[in-house]
Amino acid sequence: MKLLKDKIIQDSEVLEGNIIKVDNFLNHQVDVRMINEIGKEFKKRFSDIKVDKILTAEVSGIAIATIVAQYFDVPMVFARKTESQNLDKDKYESKVYSYTKEKIYKIMVSKRYLNKNENILIIDDILANGKAMNGLIDIVNKSGAGIVGLGVVMEKGFQKGGKILREQGYRLESLAIIDSIKEDNIKFRK
Amino acid sequence: MKLLKDKIIQDSEVLEGNIIKVDNFLNHQVDVRMINEIGKEFKKRFSDIKVDKILTAEVSGIAIATIVAQYFDVPMVFARKTESQNLDKDKYESKVYSYTKEKIYKIMVSKRYLNKNENILIIDDILANGKAMNGLIDIVNKSGAGIVGLGVVMEKGFQKGGKILREQGYRLESLAIIDSIKEDNIKFRK
Repeated sequence: MKLLKDKIIQDSEVLEGNIIKVDNFLNHQVDVRMINEIGKEFKKRFSDIKVDKILTAEVSGIAIATIVAQYFDVPMVFARKTESQNLDKDKYESKVYSYTKEKIYKIMVSKRYLNKNENILIIDDILANGKAMNGLIDIVNKSGAGIVGLGVVMEKGFQKGGKILREQGYRLESLAIIDSIKEDNIKFRK
Repeated sequence: MKLLKDKIIQDSEVLEGNIIKVDNFLNHQVDVRMINEIGKEFKKRFSDIKVDKILTAEVSGIAIATIVAQYFDVPMVFARKTESQNLDKDKYESKVYSYTKEKIYKIMVSKRYLNKNENILIIDDILANGKAMNGLIDIVNKSGAGIVGLGVVMEKGFQKGGKILREQGYRLESLAIIDSIKEDNIKFRK
């Protein structure tokens, strides 16, 4: 997706440890026009499949998944990371290891919002090692619903998450795959 | 907003302590069609003012604020609750007391995303005691930007947050104000 790649080149910052900071348009300040184009692109790429629900995880996936759900005209569910009085006791859970935070956290979805007969499209902002994505996949599998696709805005192609998911047979669509970062020079996969 | 009130009557659950659970359309599973109508309604109610940016707080405000930002065609910023490598060191902070979680948490916005000359419309899902809203107001005030309005989907009119904000002169638009809850019987303000 050229528009997105141009935006990443123009607006992102590379931090230590190959972290690409995209907080001025994707995960702190949200450029809703750009997110709209992202939603449209996911709809195009998954136009041949039936999608009943969009699933993402809080926090950074929510804005994107909302717009994607708008394009598919289906509900969106976001996995919660914190227990709350508002969350059902009866829920699917998975554990996720965060490299940036160096800790394990739980993600949870109420059993009421994932059903056996549903086709789920999982959407997230960034795919690196794939730990968060694996947690979401694990939750859908526990529910018995079907995973019809995985969509991520930015994939770090030099980390192993995307490669493994494709080898496992998942239909993964990444709108921008970064193959290398060298001294602020971001190289995309063609 | 009749559509919303009907939805609350039909789909919400009343938990102990007058907590109204709306996780099947607002803050866990998101009914994007409903959120669309909510966005449209906020645009209508604030149609006479110039809005440069929508501000909300993670987590539950994000989906709504995204759609509202779409209607105003402006960027959306969500205050973050956790420190991260992706968050600027240079940021505005405020402390918020959570009654449901019985603890104080921090909300943070990078100084880059709130500017003196901007008109900010603050959007959130639920207003009760107003602690989260006050935190967002505090952050905007620290930035020197102007607050042109506050929009919440559901106000618990029997708690003091909304009353105080109106007395302070804020233009607060609540799409559904609940005046009382008695044995699952929800009464809206006319």
